[in-house]
Amino acid sequence: MARVIVFNSVSLDGYFTDMNADMSFAHNAYPDAGWDAFVSSNARGGGVLLFGRITYELMTKFWPTPAALESMPVVAERMNNLPKVVFSKTMDKASWNNTKLIKNNMEDEIQRMKKEAGEDMVILGSGSIVSQLTRRGLIDEYQIVSIPVILGKGRTMFEGITEKIPLKLIKTQAFENGNVLLCYEPRV
Amino acid sequence: MARVIVFNSVSLDGYFTDMNADMSFAHNAYPDAGWDAFVSSNARGGGVLLFGRITYELMTKFWPTPAALESMPVVAERMNNLPKVVFSKTMDKASWNNTKLIKNNMEDEIQRMKKEAGEDMVILGSGSIVSQLTRRGLIDEYQIVSIPVILGKGRTMFEGITEKIPLKLIKTQAFENGNVLLCYEPRV
Repeated sequence: MARVIVFNSVSLDGYFTDMNADMSFAHNAYPDAGWDAFVSSNARGGGVLLFGRITYELMTKFWPTPAALESMPVVAERMNNLPKVVFSKTMDKASWNNTKLIKNNMEDEIQRMKKEAGEDMVILGSGSIVSQLTRRGLIDEYQIVSIPVILGKGRTMFEGITEKIPLKLIKTQAFENGNVLLCYEPRV
Repeated sequence: MARVIVFNSVSLDGYFTDMNADMSFAHNAYPDAGWDAFVSSNARGGGVLLFGRITYELMTKFWPTPAALESMPVVAERMNNLPKVVFSKTMDKASWNNTKLIKNNMEDEIQRMKKEAGEDMVILGSGSIVSQLTRRGLIDEYQIVSIPVILGKGRTMFEGITEKIPLKLIKTQAFENGNVLLCYEPRV
């Protein structure tokens, strides 16, 4: 079975975007070679990227641009070339390279991909998808980077969850720039 | 100068209480001698405890009871005997042992105590006080225990903050039960 992994950065108050869907708070400005190595190594992993419409459109505006290729060549190359799936009832086509648009039955599709795909699936951003799949117990791992900043307001990726969901901590890694990677599995 | 320290547990989605002001999600049910030792050692520290009304009233209902003394003797003894300050415009008296009630000018009082007191001040719970003092730059350290649970809804201790506040990570400690202590100072 392929696994579904969430990889998101959150502020100390638990938001993965600010109120304007902006994720730039997560770009930790303090130089840290260890963090840079982690990001590059993470990007070298394979897998299928899963997105909701909002995050997909945000990423499409950045990663294919010359600015992205220049400032983050390794990550940009991977983001542009990896297979991607965007879930959206309203989009008509998805123009970013190597993207499949799925308009309906997200949960069934995910179940099917878990059974079929050899490669893990990674959700970036896409709070409403994280929330929906969390409620259905379809997430296998949460890789959360805690960013050393307070936002005060923002969006949570766990909106609409009405029951406590206990997790099992499986890994932590602290970086010089103050980012802390926290990895969890659902506790079954 | 005495320091003002926040010590709070938060869910993975950043809440320090659920929607009913209940903090019991933080009582990690997975046995961990290392965590128990940390809690007891933390309780043996000195200091002055600072509260808002809601947290104060919640704690008054628990710590002086025989149930608390039986289940958590070390922590209960310290909670009951340490000097406490409760900030509230509406309370008329504070009956828990060794409590001073301050009705007005919280920020001035905190400034005065920072200058006068030999001992550090520790805020437990009390989200509105954490938020207010954070906005005024009066918190010296945030000791946050990340609890391995998703709540979906709850209260944040950073409500009303409208500008990004960058922090400096100064310590992390992961426990077997999945709790992770994250300590931050304001980044000035």
